[in-house]
Amino acid sequence: MIIVGFDPGLATLGYGVIRKELKKKAEVLDYGVISTPKDENLAVRLCMLERGIKQVLDKFKPDEIAVEELFFAKNVKTGIAVAHARGVLLLTVNKECGRLFEYTPLQIKQALTGYGRADKNQIQQMVKTFLGLKAVPKPDDAADALAVALCHAQTNKLGSLFFI
Amino acid sequence: MIIVGFDPGLATLGYGVIRKELKKKAEVLDYGVISTPKDENLAVRLCMLERGIKQVLDKFKPDEIAVEELFFAKNVKTGIAVAHARGVLLLTVNKECGRLFEYTPLQIKQALTGYGRADKNQIQQMVKTFLGLKAVPKPDDAADALAVALCHAQTNKLGSLFFI
Repeated sequence: MIIVGFDPGLATLGYGVIRKELKKKAEVLDYGVISTPKDENLAVRLCMLERGIKQVLDKFKPDEIAVEELFFAKNVKTGIAVAHARGVLLLTVNKECGRLFEYTPLQIKQALTGYGRADKNQIQQMVKTFLGLKAVPKPDDAADALAVALCHAQTNKLGSLFFI
Repeated sequence: MIIVGFDPGLATLGYGVIRKELKKKAEVLDYGVISTPKDENLAVRLCMLERGIKQVLDKFKPDEIAVEELFFAKNVKTGIAVAHARGVLLLTVNKECGRLFEYTPLQIKQALTGYGRADKNQIQQMVKTFLGLKAVPKPDDAADALAVALCHAQTNKLGSLFFI
């Protein structure tokens, strides 16, 4: 099964693509970010995000998609910007694929580390370990997207990531 | 020139369609709301909004579109929900029409009443007056959408609404 994880953002939207079969180790297929320029207007940036999301979906034709939920927020302005991008993400994913799952940051932390208060570094180390990578994936938004995809693989009865 | 105004929202997204020619009185063509059920999941609701927005644009083929800007927020949770919807709105409008203008609540109040602190009732009365309606348009989100469209007509050198 191919799973795409998305970490929503307006300036940088992360994606991570993994393959996970029952009782087999998760395998990374691709990861990266879709970026939009800060000096461009909002509607144009949202169109750029849609195009980038569609390219990822067209290329990998995922069976299921996992998206991080939005919890807010210390910075309301940032939260509003991310929510605009997330609206476009959910719309596009739902139209193109349909099998969409959402996870809270807490669920992602628990799925990957067994500990709801794990910090960013711990999560990234687990992403590296589960996917057998030599280094932590960069940038952070791509690593976060892989973490959501792994969380979905773990949660969705594809077998524990710990005991494959 | 045909102008569509949109008042963004997730549960209720208002639209108002007017015709305004230079030195002629603004004329209402249509107004209403696109509603989504609260018990449906977010991605599905965003798809419903997209469909409704497209229907309005396809039917009236507006020359220009005006959307209210989002300022926040007392209620962050509501703000985040509206921003998801607004992301879909801006994306769809930009793809379908391209001539998109945004106005702050302050700009809308000033354009319609000449007074930045006008209340909802004053705005609605001016919408009624400018469009020669017998009553204030209902629901409120539709009246707000007509107000954005009128603000654009006024601001965009189509002649003052006061001295047509």
